[in-house]
Amino acid sequence: MNASQAQTPSAPALPDPAATSVGAMGWMQGFPPSADKLIVFENPMSGAFPRNRWTFSHVRELGPTANVWRGPGAASALVAAPRDLDGVVFQSMGGEALNFGQMLTRTYTDGVLVLHKGRVVYEKYFGALTPERPHLAMSVTKSFVGTLAAISVAEGKLDPAAPVTQYLPEMKDTAYGDATVRQVMDMTIGVKYSENYADPKAEVFDYARAGGMMASGPNYAGPRTFYDFLKTLQKEGEHDDGFAYKTVNAEVLAWILARANNQSLPELLSEKIWRRIGAEQDAYFMVDRIGTASGGGGLNTTLRDLARFGEAMRNGGRANGQQAIPAAAVADITRGGDPAKFAKGGYALLPGWSYRDMWWITNNEHGAYMARGIHGQSIYVDPKAEMVIVRYAAHPIAANSGNDSLTLPAFHAVAKALLAP
Amino acid sequence: MNASQAQTPSAPALPDPAATSVGAMGWMQGFPPSADKLIVFENPMSGAFPRNRWTFSHVRELGPTANVWRGPGAASALVAAPRDLDGVVFQSMGGEALNFGQMLTRTYTDGVLVLHKGRVVYEKYFGALTPERPHLAMSVTKSFVGTLAAISVAEGKLDPAAPVTQYLPEMKDTAYGDATVRQVMDMTIGVKYSENYADPKAEVFDYARAGGMMASGPNYAGPRTFYDFLKTLQKEGEHDDGFAYKTVNAEVLAWILARANNQSLPELLSEKIWRRIGAEQDAYFMVDRIGTASGGGGLNTTLRDLARFGEAMRNGGRANGQQAIPAAAVADITRGGDPAKFAKGGYALLPGWSYRDMWWITNNEHGAYMARGIHGQSIYVDPKAEMVIVRYAAHPIAANSGNDSLTLPAFHAVAKALLAP
Repeated sequence: MNASQAQTPSAPALPDPAATSVGAMGWMQGFPPSADKLIVFENPMSGAFPRNRWTFSHVRELGPTANVWRGPGAASALVAAPRDLDGVVFQSMGGEALNFGQMLTRTYTDGVLVLHKGRVVYEKYFGALTPERPHLAMSVTKSFVGTLAAISVAEGKLDPAAPVTQYLPEMKDTAYGDATVRQVMDMTIGVKYSENYADPKAEVFDYARAGGMMASGPNYAGPRTFYDFLKTLQKEGEHDDGFAYKTVNAEVLAWILARANNQSLPELLSEKIWRRIGAEQDAYFMVDRIGTASGGGGLNTTLRDLARFGEAMRNGGRANGQQAIPAAAVADITRGGDPAKFAKGGYALLPGWSYRDMWWITNNEHGAYMARGIHGQSIYVDPKAEMVIVRYAAHPIAANSGNDSLTLPAFHAVAKALLAP
Repeated sequence: MNASQAQTPSAPALPDPAATSVGAMGWMQGFPPSADKLIVFENPMSGAFPRNRWTFSHVRELGPTANVWRGPGAASALVAAPRDLDGVVFQSMGGEALNFGQMLTRTYTDGVLVLHKGRVVYEKYFGALTPERPHLAMSVTKSFVGTLAAISVAEGKLDPAAPVTQYLPEMKDTAYGDATVRQVMDMTIGVKYSENYADPKAEVFDYARAGGMMASGPNYAGPRTFYDFLKTLQKEGEHDDGFAYKTVNAEVLAWILARANNQSLPELLSEKIWRRIGAEQDAYFMVDRIGTASGGGGLNTTLRDLARFGEAMRNGGRANGQQAIPAAAVADITRGGDPAKFAKGGYALLPGWSYRDMWWITNNEHGAYMARGIHGQSIYVDPKAEMVIVRYAAHPIAANSGNDSLTLPAFHAVAKALLAP
């Protein structure tokens, strides 16, 4: 099937998923690969489509990273109970009738796993991703950082009502000089920072260059660490006015967490989550030139471990035979944020949603909530359907709008199918 | 104890191990670390003493790496049967009476593990190293590459008698244009390449810059991959004349292996060794700008997995309840090389030794053989004593002569102590 032909007339023409697959492109084959098949960090397009279909499963091969140890124990069991979900039909937000299998192809899925009542009812890998290989989570990382913040609050190590400067005095003269930790956790910060990947002048690229996540070229003279970039951020608008999704808030929160716990983010994730949920593989973070992990988008995990984390969330923090994550932390997330504030964020495809502790709360009739990355990476927890869907993807469009119109109805349709007697 | 005071009069003055420990130096503490405690890749001294005591346990945090997956199975058991070996006395080659514990301190040990009859009789970690953390193996890497070559020969995938150019036609106009694979495996290649770390103009630094293993600076115009560097190597002297230890031979062999197996070195090590010996953690390789793993010195493993590999070698390739490594490959290694050729290598401290498949054969009365890295990294297999000693270290002197006069007598003394009734 040629997906671009299958688009609705109003949708933008997208590249054919099959013709742009890792197999079809032949990236990085041979010793050495030929010049046209080579993916190198110095190429600023190494993380862009179609190279991202290879790169997102090979991030550590392009730059420095820090390990997130899974711990000494055995992996928690993931019992397979396969169901054929490919045929589950849904209607896209554009009104097109599709099924789950078509959605996976059309949204450039690298891997997807569906848990129902804790059992693996569906698990598929495409292209460069394999069950043991970590994939770039991008902004799904933020939900881990938000969860670690909620855990730190539950453990009494972090005060959400405190000013940011209590933990980060060096942020005094920045946008965060008069902000609270809670405002950072819920992204209601007034800060001049554009997340628009379609605008080459957007600050998101300054951020990526400062953190060493994309090539900065030989004449680069900007900040050389995440922290130094964060210290340049200036105020725009007011705090607490409304939800404004900006990656730098997750980096600020990660910095706060490191100070509050006196632990690096990789160590903290290992100790507080990875070792407790029975992770099967180590995870890892991209790090900047001084070894600081990116809390905004640098996490890489296997799909299976992402599923284990989602399932722990669904079970109020219980995983691997123990209270892996404090119940209070999970409750603080699932209570959600203020939909009125969220509405100011301008997400036309997400009516009635809210945002809390760096999680996206659907407020639908199933009480579903999500972690979301801009190329389609997601954790979708549906408490009513006792379902968790995790997905890694490498969509050509760096915006959730490229995925949401298909994925959100598809996830809900699968939930309803699993609820059916 | 101040180790420099404890040196024999003829030995060079060395830094006090305690005063230069990771704990004493306080490297990379804080968020961010202060400038004087920072270790960054751009600093060409980041891998030199005393920073190496931190860096060797954090290599992936400074640059790109490729994973060596341990496989889906559980780790093979390492049963502890502790013995107090600290007091085992020996005489250094300089005539000094010391014990094993003193040797460990005096040679800047990061970790050491002794297996006797497959059980862990001694295991200690110092400084930055922990049981789950990989450490830079440096030239111990070469013995893995040599073992993989011997495995490929046993599997019929590699012909040691073939010319190098059968696998690497692009090496036709280099020193390797008239060499055989066997000559590469045993390092009897006549090639202009200096391994002298004390000479800043030595080619070993050109090699390291080409492979992205050390900072090359903004005006660097030399080769940007291992392969491109190898293609510049010119002949000096004759092949097969004698043993000449040159890291580039291991890189050439790694390239041959990739071509012969159509697999990258990390994949090959995972499939042929790591998944078979019951490794406890993933290992990893440093990779260059196009993702090529360094077979000359880029491997990082935990000490425990290094011990598992040594124990598999001691048992003729049997490990984890199976013939993990072909017996023929192990036999090809342990038969050793030609001591007359080895003698031409000029190792005054290693009389009567030989070199085969990138392993060092002592030819002592115990039939011991070794893998050796220049800062003291080692695998020491003593078949008669049914003993394997593995050690990671970060000695100030980048040469085995800094370790051998103490470590070799110490290892042999421990072997004799374990043999005693």
